[in-house]
Amino acid sequence: MKLSHMDDKGNAKMVDVSAKENTKRTAKAYGRIEMRPETLELIVKNGLPKGDVFSTARIAGIMAAKKTWELIPMCHNISLTHVSVEFKIDRDRSAVEIFTTASSVGKTGVEMEALTAASVAALTIYDMAKAVDKEMVIADIYLLMKSGGKSGDWKRGSDEK
Amino acid sequence: MKLSHMDDKGNAKMVDVSAKENTKRTAKAYGRIEMRPETLELIVKNGLPKGDVFSTARIAGIMAAKKTWELIPMCHNISLTHVSVEFKIDRDRSAVEIFTTASSVGKTGVEMEALTAASVAALTIYDMAKAVDKEMVIADIYLLMKSGGKSGDWKRGSDEK
Amino acid sequence: MKLSHMDDKGNAKMVDVSAKENTKRTAKAYGRIEMRPETLELIVKNGLPKGDVFSTARIAGIMAAKKTWELIPMCHNISLTHVSVEFKIDRDRSAVEIFTTASSVGKTGVEMEALTAASVAALTIYDMAKAVDKEMVIADIYLLMKSGGKSGDWKRGSDEK
Amino acid sequence: MKLSHMDDKGNAKMVDVSAKENTKRTAKAYGRIEMRPETLELIVKNGLPKGDVFSTARIAGIMAAKKTWELIPMCHNISLTHVSVEFKIDRDRSAVEIFTTASSVGKTGVEMEALTAASVAALTIYDMAKAVDKEMVIADIYLLMKSGGKSGDWKRGSDEK
Amino acid sequence: MKLSHMDDKGNAKMVDVSAKENTKRTAKAYGRIEMRPETLELIVKNGLPKGDVFSTARIAGIMAAKKTWELIPMCHNISLTHVSVEFKIDRDRSAVEIFTTASSVGKTGVEMEALTAASVAALTIYDMAKAVDKEMVIADIYLLMKSGGKSGDWKRGSDEK
Amino acid sequence: MKLSHMDDKGNAKMVDVSAKENTKRTAKAYGRIEMRPETLELIVKNGLPKGDVFSTARIAGIMAAKKTWELIPMCHNISLTHVSVEFKIDRDRSAVEIFTTASSVGKTGVEMEALTAASVAALTIYDMAKAVDKEMVIADIYLLMKSGGKSGDWKRGSDEK
Repeated sequence: MKLSHMDDKGNAKMVDVSAKENTKRTAKAYGRIEMRPETLELIVKNGLPKGDVFSTARIAGIMAAKKTWELIPMCHNISLTHVSVEFKIDRDRSAVEIFTTASSVGKTGVEMEALTAASVAALTIYDMAKAVDKEMVIADIYLLMKSGGKSGDWKRGSDEK
Repeated sequence: MKLSHMDDKGNAKMVDVSAKENTKRTAKAYGRIEMRPETLELIVKNGLPKGDVFSTARIAGIMAAKKTWELIPMCHNISLTHVSVEFKIDRDRSAVEIFTTASSVGKTGVEMEALTAASVAALTIYDMAKAVDKEMVIADIYLLMKSGGKSGDWKRGSDEK
Repeated sequence: MKLSHMDDKGNAKMVDVSAKENTKRTAKAYGRIEMRPETLELIVKNGLPKGDVFSTARIAGIMAAKKTWELIPMCHNISLTHVSVEFKIDRDRSAVEIFTTASSVGKTGVEMEALTAASVAALTIYDMAKAVDKEMVIADIYLLMKSGGKSGDWKRGSDEK
Repeated sequence: MKLSHMDDKGNAKMVDVSAKENTKRTAKAYGRIEMRPETLELIVKNGLPKGDVFSTARIAGIMAAKKTWELIPMCHNISLTHVSVEFKIDRDRSAVEIFTTASSVGKTGVEMEALTAASVAALTIYDMAKAVDKEMVIADIYLLMKSGGKSGDWKRGSDEK
Repeated sequence: MKLSHMDDKGNAKMVDVSAKENTKRTAKAYGRIEMRPETLELIVKNGLPKGDVFSTARIAGIMAAKKTWELIPMCHNISLTHVSVEFKIDRDRSAVEIFTTASSVGKTGVEMEALTAASVAALTIYDMAKAVDKEMVIADIYLLMKSGGKSGDWKRGSDEK
Repeated sequence: MKLSHMDDKGNAKMVDVSAKENTKRTAKAYGRIEMRPETLELIVKNGLPKGDVFSTARIAGIMAAKKTWELIPMCHNISLTHVSVEFKIDRDRSAVEIFTTASSVGKTGVEMEALTAASVAALTIYDMAKAVDKEMVIADIYLLMKSGGKSGDWKRGSDEK
């Protein structure tokens, strides 16, 4: 088992995907930002049904997905065919949940694009509410699934090899 | 109590900081990425003492801090005077801990810059190890402290108003 | 009378503002995108009061203002202290009107930032409605006023020399 | 009739083009910047035959076309195979006319790329002449034609459905 | 013989590659940065085997290759499938040698991407050592080879037509 | 003697300039691109007196200077007050010489900005002439002088300590 982004000397490298086939790739990621209940109410009240907290965070997430290759050094610069960012209110955990999807038809997976969209959407919510609540926590950003490519489909919680 | 980034009609806005004084601003943030113990060993073995996993993640975090205003829609584009990204191995939680600092002399706080550095450093570690462990979780990104500006100093866990 | 962005040989140049004083600068710009009445109704219905057509165009305009120096070759890269983008529905002309403001404390005016915000907000409205109306026209983007700096205040329609 | 960039809840979305075929796409756009006759003469005199006002505006327009996806939130990031920006002097209207073309081989149209090139070329002319004429107006930016893709060819003034 | 990036009127243009076939393209470039022997020792001591001078320069070079289209006005924005940056210590010339490779599957060559990677890697080494040696010289950046595309393979020193 | 961009553990760092005073900073750099005599004639013929090879390279150099902080990982993102790029034809060496100046009023030097402008201007000339001459060499990019800041003035060839 070795890190794919390391060469034999331990140097970071960009994986060569020249010979890979173009296939439809999709990845879904999850994120959650937890806050005080009164902060959540403020966001919901100002922000729903289609208000600007969520609009801004959605747009920020979508635009960030397109910039993933500028942020993550060894990521390939690819053309995305789709990005979406959805939000759910989780009152039990006093949190906003973030669900992202990224798709591409190409030679590399889009896991990082989905994760970047989730991270930047969470950061944007933090930014817009930080004047009233600096204790917010961006928690549990992870991959939900990926499909396409030679390594095949993967789902969180499945027995990965 | 209201959201500073919302105008009276509920539209997102960029706070006008024209009249604010230039002061030294610093913010520190924390992040953690949890992974399987064998993934952590692989990163540590390949990556220490000064190897490329951590170099790459540090550089990615520093460069992302400078791009915060491109990512977070309502953030001001400012000149940073300092950014640092440090890592600690936490074997108890099988995690890499990330500690970031951002500084500026200007009219706006740099909380988002410190948080963005932590997020992108974590995403970069994810990217470099994802071929061996897709179940990694970016957990608990939050602000540790901020200083400078009219609203004064703030420390996580202090009684904030 | 000569072009400030031309040197004596006719080459484009970036004006040297090193010796200029830092003052508060503001500029306001106007834009208008005209469309079929049914397109306008669709945008208004889907978009109001705080819906995503206008949210997206507002955010795009604000983000573009921060990128003006990346787009306009001889513009200085400056820190903006404020950007705003507002919309009005003009049913008589079957148009959306765009009003932008940009501010900075610095050595150069922010006219281009206000104009760029208006242009990109208009382009974004075009993008979001183009599937139903390709005949839309972005019309009449111009400067409304500027203040600050050695050349002083200026207002559209005043007798300028 | 509905807006393609809105989902059922009225949220902005990026259209999923994963299943679309790769075809040659071309779009042509038009723009015009009107100014005082003496401003026009100054640009023409300094700028022709191959001088820097038009060179700068042409280059700015071409470079902006490549950045369209960074500016327009719901635009896909695509590879352009061609961009051109041409200028004509229109003394009757005391204006510079701008003609742009963008091409791509891919899954999405390039209308926004052609329109963005025209807008940024016009803004650049404004920037370079604004010291002598702040009353300039960027007028009448619109699409001339598009070809390629499932929706087929379209020409301004044709009976569109 | 004429310049491919000039139209008949002498205006810069982006070559239209719409009709070109997608083929695997590779280019290799070389660069060298010369410095005082004690500067070289300092870099080698601090930087080897996997230290941060070379890590930083490698990452900077890889990231810059992906941004070539943003820097070079007439370059097409393309997706790279691979970039690598390698260093060699040349004590005879008291220099660091830089070897870069860029690959793509597409319609245009990747010479500029390989050359940009070499240039930015050299600039980054300069940046990191400039406090101790401002007399460093970035010397002899050139293309080593290219392959793919209709014009076929090319190797430095071969008889080119 | 140690590298300013290395911390005690050998990690790359961004120098903290928060406490530095704002002073006027200037740096001048030099570059040269050598080519076959017939290539040089082609550039001169197509490009002079104000033609597009040099216009394009000048604009590319100016725009790249503003992006230096995006390219060089440890560079601070600063506001430049001036950038210029000039060319000279050197028939003896069959080369184009490049002279750049960058200025800022701030806490950090602008050496990298002047050097980046020279590098990207040279790369742009390479790009525009590469179809007729792939053997061109970007040679001898170096710093000519810097002024301002606590470390004071420096001139190439002076006895530096």
